[in-house]
Amino acid sequence: METLIGIDLGGTNVRVGVVTPAGKVLTSADALIQAARGPQYGLERIITLIEQVLTLVPEANLRAIGIGATGPVDRARGSIQNPYTLPTWEDVDIVGPLSARFGVPVDLENDADAAALGEAWIGAGRGYSRVAAVTVGTGIGYALVTDQAIEYGVDGAHAEGGHVLIDPHGPPCYCGGRGCLESLAAGPAIAARAQQAASGNATAMIQLAGSLEAIDARVVVQSARGGDALACKLVAEVAEWLGLGIVNILTLRLPDCVCLGGGVMQAYDLFAPGIAAVVARHSIVIPAERVKILPMQLGGLAGVIGAARAAWNKDQERNS
Amino acid sequence: METLIGIDLGGTNVRVGVVTPAGKVLTSADALIQAARGPQYGLERIITLIEQVLTLVPEANLRAIGIGATGPVDRARGSIQNPYTLPTWEDVDIVGPLSARFGVPVDLENDADAAALGEAWIGAGRGYSRVAAVTVGTGIGYALVTDQAIEYGVDGAHAEGGHVLIDPHGPPCYCGGRGCLESLAAGPAIAARAQQAASGNATAMIQLAGSLEAIDARVVVQSARGGDALACKLVAEVAEWLGLGIVNILTLRLPDCVCLGGGVMQAYDLFAPGIAAVVARHSIVIPAERVKILPMQLGGLAGVIGAARAAWNKDQERNS
Repeated sequence: METLIGIDLGGTNVRVGVVTPAGKVLTSADALIQAARGPQYGLERIITLIEQVLTLVPEANLRAIGIGATGPVDRARGSIQNPYTLPTWEDVDIVGPLSARFGVPVDLENDADAAALGEAWIGAGRGYSRVAAVTVGTGIGYALVTDQAIEYGVDGAHAEGGHVLIDPHGPPCYCGGRGCLESLAAGPAIAARAQQAASGNATAMIQLAGSLEAIDARVVVQSARGGDALACKLVAEVAEWLGLGIVNILTLRLPDCVCLGGGVMQAYDLFAPGIAAVVARHSIVIPAERVKILPMQLGGLAGVIGAARAAWNKDQERNS
Repeated sequence: METLIGIDLGGTNVRVGVVTPAGKVLTSADALIQAARGPQYGLERIITLIEQVLTLVPEANLRAIGIGATGPVDRARGSIQNPYTLPTWEDVDIVGPLSARFGVPVDLENDADAAALGEAWIGAGRGYSRVAAVTVGTGIGYALVTDQAIEYGVDGAHAEGGHVLIDPHGPPCYCGGRGCLESLAAGPAIAARAQQAASGNATAMIQLAGSLEAIDARVVVQSARGGDALACKLVAEVAEWLGLGIVNILTLRLPDCVCLGGGVMQAYDLFAPGIAAVVARHSIVIPAERVKILPMQLGGLAGVIGAARAAWNKDQERNS
């Protein structure tokens, strides 16, 4: 049976799965990447995981390996350039060693691109031609997939749409701008705003978190579900920012759907009404309301599935 | 000799040209559309113009007609849906009558899309794969062309990127938002801001315009060239807004180049340094400085040339 290996390489964990050309995950396994121990250690860990999952699918006829790695990556050279979330992983060739070890082509993608492709293929974006994906977690990731192909930018680079500008008077961000979406609506931004707002206020958030400093996005969401007024206000604010970020995706691109995922979007139902209201408000010169806003469906497996699909796409191209 | 007809249909003028499959305009002619006299009058005017230009190229073997019309248009049905800038032109079939009269296929596009395709084909974007185009005039138009194909949005709609959000505390816009790029940096916005700033101030702008109320974007530009401090400050502000709008195009898409045109951009040299500074400031997480920012080259003929190319693209598709 023809199979693909999909690898989701993050700053903390690496997950490896055996995926069929129909997008089914036959088995998967994950481990801590312990990035600080260096890329050699990480690579050995990945090779061991691949060997382990392949052992569980003895009938697998491996066609290709796909990696979705926390960016930046140099796709053309097959190397990871990420000293930020993978310390010491600067200019590390990952494609060469894996290809040599397993004797198949290896494809390297940005992790947001891989996850978006997974969702477009067999997740929330299935059946749509133009699928935008936004992941809201520690950062905000963005990718666009058109007809099951990842869209790349100039020189093959990945567009960091999570840094789209929303408010030029907003907080400064490491992206160089002020008030980009990530600086306003990612997990840490929600936590910072909540701590500031909770200080000196009667709110269930402090009690739930244990201390003011321990309030994070999860606490905000949980307190809002419990009816805490301040938490509800914060959720409404974040929904407004997310809505405006999505409006910018719509005005510049009008995809068929926008899939929302990531840690913060586990509370999708809480943010959805606010987001929908912002989109509705901006539906005059563009048919914004025809764009479906959807929660992602593949959870932690989107990256593995999408990386496998990217490798399969490349394999098909080579053989056509 | 195989030829195409390109039509640029605006709210005030219509221009018709005979274009070769290499993008050369053999002849062109224009006339007032007098939209208020109704679509029947306009259509007859267009037909007369086509007949006139074809007379001037007796060896022309007409293959197809392309129209770039001031939006919104219904591309699938070939009809214009624009009671805003073409009063009484609501649901007007333009493709049918022209096709019947000239016996060739007729293709209808949005005018911003057509102009972008013209520039991507043989203008400033020539040789680039992903070409974004921004026209700054009475409104702000936006389009993206990839490998000589116009990018459409959901259900074939045109994305109105000129309404990308820049400042949620900015002026309200008919698009439903506040502080979109058009509401801050289009000609009328520049004029309004200049009149407000000039009131009670010593500035060459009032003298040049004749009165406070007569200050428009052209006066601002001309006064800035003359060294007027207030006009220079306004130009710097507008360059900042345009730069932020372009940064949003880059963060979400990272095209190979962004071509700037339209009336206000006739003073491209005046705005370019400010725009470049904003782009440079945002070049940390994306390779923004690798994206070329260029002035458009085809002037008033971009729409005619691009509409012809769009018709040619469709003709090639039909025959392949």
